[in-house]
Amino acid sequence: MHNQKPLVILGIDPGTTITGYGLIAFSAHSMRPIDYGCIKPPSKYPLHERYLIIYEALEQLIILHRPDAIAIETQFVYKNAQSALKLGIAKGMAILAAGKNKLPIHEYAPKEAKLAVSGKGSASKQHVQRMIQLLLGLSTPPTPEDAADALSLAICHANHLKFQEKLRQGVHP
Amino acid sequence: MHNQKPLVILGIDPGTTITGYGLIAFSAHSMRPIDYGCIKPPSKYPLHERYLIIYEALEQLIILHRPDAIAIETQFVYKNAQSALKLGIAKGMAILAAGKNKLPIHEYAPKEAKLAVSGKGSASKQHVQRMIQLLLGLSTPPTPEDAADALSLAICHANHLKFQEKLRQGVHP
Repeated sequence: MHNQKPLVILGIDPGTTITGYGLIAFSAHSMRPIDYGCIKPPSKYPLHERYLIIYEALEQLIILHRPDAIAIETQFVYKNAQSALKLGIAKGMAILAAGKNKLPIHEYAPKEAKLAVSGKGSASKQHVQRMIQLLLGLSTPPTPEDAADALSLAICHANHLKFQEKLRQGVHP
Repeated sequence: MHNQKPLVILGIDPGTTITGYGLIAFSAHSMRPIDYGCIKPPSKYPLHERYLIIYEALEQLIILHRPDAIAIETQFVYKNAQSALKLGIAKGMAILAAGKNKLPIHEYAPKEAKLAVSGKGSASKQHVQRMIQLLLGLSTPPTPEDAADALSLAICHANHLKFQEKLRQGVHP
């Protein structure tokens, strides 16, 4: 935000079945959506190939939109260790897509992302979707949930950067 | 094994702290070691960078030795879900290194790998290391453990391929 060029943030909500993504551009006084959606590798494919599809789709998004940073979810709660392992592999795809493209990666807890868009860490999915619609001026609430979660991570990181910038300028946020 | 060209197998035992690797070449009647060791990203580095180091080291091994297949451990038991998530990310690096280089990836349970080298699924680490030394004609037992585990995965896959080849030829294995 030191200059007028908007920063582009790619939010990623990794998952083996569905990986949500959300891209926003923001500057000191505006925030706009670029693209959002989800990567859903065909379930009939072997798991290894599904991970590769996730990686390649994320890399395509990075090449196309040249984000300045990536925001990803910090996971705390799992159904079980086997799910955590699979989720870890999917998360690895996002970490590597960022790393190989020399993009900084920032992690936020789900509560922080909800708080950033709705002011409530315990907001419902529907509330989060409506708030993202308002913040980004979308004609409808973003769906599916995974894409909305990815957008909220991107917005959360944008807010974090704005906050840091204000501190840098000596303005009480 | 249809022709005389030896097949090269890269065994990988992924881990966030230490990732073991072991490369062997084998043909119908021989098996020899190519290289083994471990990837140990500096612990002072941020986790994201450590994963990238693991990926890049694995990719270097693939470029250098051009393996025909990759053998990796199927994980079943975890200390906790947080460890499983981290392990999943490290495993994701191996899966992606294989996928991006169009190499088939085969998973074996730790017991299968132990059985393949020692005839006992419950063999001790030391027993496994001594048996690998004998099978590959090494001057000393392979260390560290992670490298030995990776070699046993590669040997396990070699045995599996030999078994399949015998079945194909109609020979009772």
